[in-house]
Amino acid sequence: MSFTVSALAAAGPDAPLALTTIERREPGPHDVLIDIAYTGICHTDLALLRNHWMEGVFPMVPGHEITGTVIATGSEVTRYTVGNRVGVGCYIDSCRECVNCLAGEEQHCLKGEVYTYAGLDYDKQTTYGGYSQKIVVDENYVLGVPDGLPLDAAAPLLCAGVTMYAPLRRWGAAPGMKVGIVGMGGLGHVGVKIAHAMGAEVTVLSQSFSKREDGLRFGADNYVATKDGSYFRDNQRSLDLIINTVSANVDTSAYLGLLRLDGVLVNAGVSAEALSFPSPLLGDPRRIVTSTKNGSIRENQEMLDFCAQHGIAADIETVSADKANDALERLDRGDVRYRFVIDVSTLGVSN
Amino acid sequence: MSFTVSALAAAGPDAPLALTTIERREPGPHDVLIDIAYTGICHTDLALLRNHWMEGVFPMVPGHEITGTVIATGSEVTRYTVGNRVGVGCYIDSCRECVNCLAGEEQHCLKGEVYTYAGLDYDKQTTYGGYSQKIVVDENYVLGVPDGLPLDAAAPLLCAGVTMYAPLRRWGAAPGMKVGIVGMGGLGHVGVKIAHAMGAEVTVLSQSFSKREDGLRFGADNYVATKDGSYFRDNQRSLDLIINTVSANVDTSAYLGLLRLDGVLVNAGVSAEALSFPSPLLGDPRRIVTSTKNGSIRENQEMLDFCAQHGIAADIETVSADKANDALERLDRGDVRYRFVIDVSTLGVSN
Repeated sequence: MSFTVSALAAAGPDAPLALTTIERREPGPHDVLIDIAYTGICHTDLALLRNHWMEGVFPMVPGHEITGTVIATGSEVTRYTVGNRVGVGCYIDSCRECVNCLAGEEQHCLKGEVYTYAGLDYDKQTTYGGYSQKIVVDENYVLGVPDGLPLDAAAPLLCAGVTMYAPLRRWGAAPGMKVGIVGMGGLGHVGVKIAHAMGAEVTVLSQSFSKREDGLRFGADNYVATKDGSYFRDNQRSLDLIINTVSANVDTSAYLGLLRLDGVLVNAGVSAEALSFPSPLLGDPRRIVTSTKNGSIRENQEMLDFCAQHGIAADIETVSADKANDALERLDRGDVRYRFVIDVSTLGVSN
Repeated sequence: MSFTVSALAAAGPDAPLALTTIERREPGPHDVLIDIAYTGICHTDLALLRNHWMEGVFPMVPGHEITGTVIATGSEVTRYTVGNRVGVGCYIDSCRECVNCLAGEEQHCLKGEVYTYAGLDYDKQTTYGGYSQKIVVDENYVLGVPDGLPLDAAAPLLCAGVTMYAPLRRWGAAPGMKVGIVGMGGLGHVGVKIAHAMGAEVTVLSQSFSKREDGLRFGADNYVATKDGSYFRDNQRSLDLIINTVSANVDTSAYLGLLRLDGVLVNAGVSAEALSFPSPLLGDPRRIVTSTKNGSIRENQEMLDFCAQHGIAADIETVSADKANDALERLDRGDVRYRFVIDVSTLGVSN
């Protein structure tokens, strides 16, 4: 049993997104049927559509920053009812049996969590993401969007937001702690807001001052243009935690030098090039390099609740479905402040 | 005021150690005068004597794994009395005022801790280490050697021992935890003993099986010859903590692959080459790379007490002072099981 919904799909890595229809399964006993309101356009969408990281699975319907409203529930669903405002992030299932799933770290499922799109579910069906009218997801992988959060600006929180929230929480961002955010794009701008709301002193490390006013408005205490190298020279051993959101290769050694004893460098961006730095930078003083991968279901919900409590959401530019290809082009050029969100209500309407 | 003691010194980076005399200061109010019984020969001695890491300070009297007996104390000394069995490790002073000293992390002193040898003390005097009959050290930088520990086999604990103890403790080695020790030399063999005593399941990762029987005797549960790559293929995501004691460049990527979610790779060896690995190895699953630098005064004392409690010391080969050059040559070839210790009572005796 299945039903048909409109979607934006790319036929192959060189093809633009085009309006089409896809099949969704009828909701099973544990499923929630979501009428999608908004879907964020993530850098991952661009990378997967264009085979930057790997051979993609086509046709591809991107989108893993999804918000909407529950319009039907399976017979066993207990967490959600029709009318609930909900979200879906980077994955829609996991094995629920492995040591990582049992530890509530579903994003590290040893069987392989089921990606929201361009993945295979456990029935070997290709998954289709949020650039579509509706989606069917097991209730355990659906997040509740608190009333205070607008569905449009909340959508990017489901990937960009949790990718920043998880390491900030894990590494203890709090008053008295000095946090550096490298890059102020889709991830970075939300990271500044969250780190500030956690009470940390926030320094943005951006290439230039072009987004400085925004950064200060988001809550940054300091804003540094890294192309002037003096900051690195004058601020050795000054920060407790740096989260690097830049995917292009960055000078890991320079950022390590900014960390004080037991300081932590978290790579939130995935770089095609290897991380490389002299080993003494890790020991003298002792420092930590690590990374992060979106977030667990628990972290996603905590993050949404935290953002609602602190009035935080993404700064977005909303586009209609017929402008999705333009938005991807602009994203590729870095021409967005700070996240595109597709108004999915425009999808399937002739234009 | 000063006095003269016999010592082994190298005149320059190409010179062998030769018997000479050096000046020691008269003990001040807070100082302890130690009659040195044994000094371990550390890889650091070899590296500094031969300018492998930097231009050395010559003449050089190496030695930072020192045990002996207190033979005089300054008027204000409260911790030690004549006759106490004591040890001295990698540093003999620190500023006591910086944030790291105040946090009890003297080995990360921001002014620069005073190295036990080939350093400058805060009076700009070159420091001379344990290849000498006596040493004068502020009591705050002197460790108590518990009665159960023999002074000869305890000496290497003051560098090799604490370098392993500190990260094992920091990262929670305990029953139920799987710890890998890469390399079974001076550091590694003590690391196996300590990790086993902490209750962890210990796997030694050595190039070959040549030290396998010793490893199992020291408490290893598993012993792997890494030149057979099958272990890496068959044991992905299996270990919680890996401490790499190998100074030569090792395949960081291969060791990272062995770590499960939130596993930690600690580099205890200092490599001349950069650490380099693909960034996804840190994020999927989430892993940590860090390093370690000997230990704090507190960690040194804890380690000695722990080793006494568990009957742990280094496996040593004791040499007389006139064989110190031979021992360094053998160390350079890896021909030692597992640490040379100089019997300092033979120093200054005509031979």
